Amino acid sequence: MNKQVHTDCLSMLVPVQDALCVINGKWKLLILISISSGNSRFREIERSIPRITSKVLSKELKDLEENLLINRTVRDGYPVTIDYTTTDYFMTLENVVQALKDWGINHRKMLTAKS
Amino acid sequence: MNKQVHTDCLSMLVPVQDALCVINGKWKLLILISISSGNSRFREIERSIPRITSKVLSKELKDLEENLLINRTVRDGYPVTIDYTTTDYFMTLENVVQALKDWGINHRKMLTAKS
Repeated sequence: MNKQVHTDCLSMLVPVQDALCVINGKWKLLILISISSGNSRFREIERSIPRITSKVLSKELKDLEENLLINRTVRDGYPVTIDYTTTDYFMTLENVVQALKDWGINHRKMLTAKS
Repeated sequence: MNKQVHTDCLSMLVPVQDALCVINGKWKLLILISISSGNSRFREIERSIPRITSKVLSKELKDLEENLLINRTVRDGYPVTIDYTTTDYFMTLENVVQALKDWGINHRKMLTAKS
């Protein structure tokens, strides 16, 4: 294998792997999109994402909070309410989400044209 | 929940979910990057991606072939050789890969600055 090619490959692989580490899995980006679209309560987010379970959503929200992509705010009152909002840092993912959306639309068109 | 917001959310969610269905998991994009960087043989690809196992690579290559993102070519000879190359269709994923790469670089900088 050409050494230059190998170096090029790694310079691409490492940052993509870093990014995938944070947004990996089938749910994280969908949860972020749901929250950034205005769903702030647990049940709202759950209802907006087909087939997600409460247990999975709960775990994913924790991961996203740890990675500074969402804020979890507890509001006093009766009952206590918990709001989720996306952070400024999430905004840096905008290009990733847009590129995935564009490709997803294109991919569905391709599959429809084939069938 | 506002109905308009819900519709906006779904118009974003569905294509992103479609895209994630195809490139989901921690390996698929990394394998595509490796092949598109010039690694065409199974062992080359395996060596270029830290921590991937033969079994996983084998399964992922099959999935990628089914999704028209790579070609698998069997070359007669002794021994028979098998080459993997990315397809033209993979090129449509360029923006996704680039956006992930840019974000990964940025994310690592952010983590380094914090520590």
